[in-house]
Amino acid sequence: MNEIRIHEVGLRDGLQIEKQVVPLEKKIAWIEGLLAAGIDMIQLGSFVNPERVPQMADSDKLFAHFSQDVKKPSAVVLSGLVLNEKGLERGMACGVEMFCMGVSASDTHSRKNTGRGTDEAMGQIIAMAQAALKAQKRVQASIQSAFGCGFEGPIAPERVLSIVEKYLEAGIRNISLADTAGHAYPPQVEDLYGEILKRDGQAELACHFHNTYGLGLANCYAAMRAGVKYFESALGGLGGCPFTKVAAGNVCSEDLVHSLQRQGLATGIDLEKLLAAARDLAAFFGRELPGFILKAGSIVNFKKGQ
Amino acid sequence: MNEIRIHEVGLRDGLQIEKQVVPLEKKIAWIEGLLAAGIDMIQLGSFVNPERVPQMADSDKLFAHFSQDVKKPSAVVLSGLVLNEKGLERGMACGVEMFCMGVSASDTHSRKNTGRGTDEAMGQIIAMAQAALKAQKRVQASIQSAFGCGFEGPIAPERVLSIVEKYLEAGIRNISLADTAGHAYPPQVEDLYGEILKRDGQAELACHFHNTYGLGLANCYAAMRAGVKYFESALGGLGGCPFTKVAAGNVCSEDLVHSLQRQGLATGIDLEKLLAAARDLAAFFGRELPGFILKAGSIVNFKKGQ
Repeated sequence: MNEIRIHEVGLRDGLQIEKQVVPLEKKIAWIEGLLAAGIDMIQLGSFVNPERVPQMADSDKLFAHFSQDVKKPSAVVLSGLVLNEKGLERGMACGVEMFCMGVSASDTHSRKNTGRGTDEAMGQIIAMAQAALKAQKRVQASIQSAFGCGFEGPIAPERVLSIVEKYLEAGIRNISLADTAGHAYPPQVEDLYGEILKRDGQAELACHFHNTYGLGLANCYAAMRAGVKYFESALGGLGGCPFTKVAAGNVCSEDLVHSLQRQGLATGIDLEKLLAAARDLAAFFGRELPGFILKAGSIVNFKKGQ
Repeated sequence: MNEIRIHEVGLRDGLQIEKQVVPLEKKIAWIEGLLAAGIDMIQLGSFVNPERVPQMADSDKLFAHFSQDVKKPSAVVLSGLVLNEKGLERGMACGVEMFCMGVSASDTHSRKNTGRGTDEAMGQIIAMAQAALKAQKRVQASIQSAFGCGFEGPIAPERVLSIVEKYLEAGIRNISLADTAGHAYPPQVEDLYGEILKRDGQAELACHFHNTYGLGLANCYAAMRAGVKYFESALGGLGGCPFTKVAAGNVCSEDLVHSLQRQGLATGIDLEKLLAAARDLAAFFGRELPGFILKAGSIVNFKKGQ
């Protein structure tokens, strides 16, 4: 039994900001690499307007490939991000197993992203989540900007807790806190997850950190200390915008797995195979990715004299 | 009263591997920048064979400048690394206030570095420490490779604890654990410092991490949780070897200070001035340094609408 579960989100949160559109075949090859490495929860993409985000235009085909044409292992969960009812409908049609959806704890961020404030967005998201649950699908509801907002700055924990309570009341058990701008710091992370688990010790909590200020893995450690078992991360640390100087990539999957395995935690993941997939990703984009293990090499199986 | 004290070691552990020798005037300017930022413990250099490490050849002049010619604030402690009696003698002559010295917990590392095993090196270091204490100097004794070794791999905590006990018995109160190869991981850090503080709750413990595997700040958080109050770090995250792909820099001072200030901890440091010093360092070397805040900017004083 694995103690920690990695939810690989690089194909969505990593690729969505990349200008260089990745061909379907390449995405399939990366997903095969992730499956070979033993990653058992993978976000294949999002269901958004293909004209607005061309990188995500083939999400339906990608799900169809792995859920209909090629059978992936049954223990593997394929997730997709949906923003509205239309996305939910598309996801239902092509084989999404876990629907990810959410609201922002920052009213400003929510309005900029969706045209509506948090409270208004909430009603829609809860209705969508309940529809997906009714259809026997897994659902993960997220709270974006849960630890701070690039527009508003600090976000009161009470605001996040009240959204969590609404999710729990609506029957949503799997809740992810997303540090969209990378503002989180470790004791804040530990406190906030601790507060949630005080309210419901059985909630399935996930975390999603960005490494903007170098604290990604520190925040993961803090979340783990608080009892979080689901970690969202991206191969290679993808997600940083290559067109600015702000290094805002996701927590890097192979760095996180390396850190977990160094701690002796069971992840069910073959790190060398994961690194091979990350190297293929770096080769495709032709630039150095933020991941540390890609550069330094793994010391999980370090033996004297190496 | 500051809750955490930063010991800036970039001028020694950062510069010693840089091939481009930094002129004395430049070092003086950086130290002035660090003093202006409120850093109150600075390692100016080491006392080693100038032919072997030309970068450290002007350590005596640097100390003489700040301890004799220019009076630095009395609350500021200037430290120097010494490897042997000759170094100690040089340091005594030029105004070193805190002598840093140590042994490696790895016998192989100790033999490669000093030609002698840990036990043999220990006798000499303790004698030097006691001589410095007798001369009313501050002393910090370190244990290198305390969390793992680039030659031996894992290091048993018992080995580190037995060295700590010998230091404490010898009357050395200030003890630093150095993660020379960057092998440390957070729960290991928390456990090891916890064990030391169980043996002597009043020991003044310092930590020295490298960011080889991306865990530098995570390990700092773990050390802080265990009760460590002295943190050794390097401006810009200097210390990574620019001639290999292994990113083995020290924990970056301004990233660490940013993280501490985000937590609301008092450091007595002006982060913007520290960043100015780091930018000057980056400009001198003409390359991007590992620090995250240098790229992303500080959000310590983040206000809505920025």
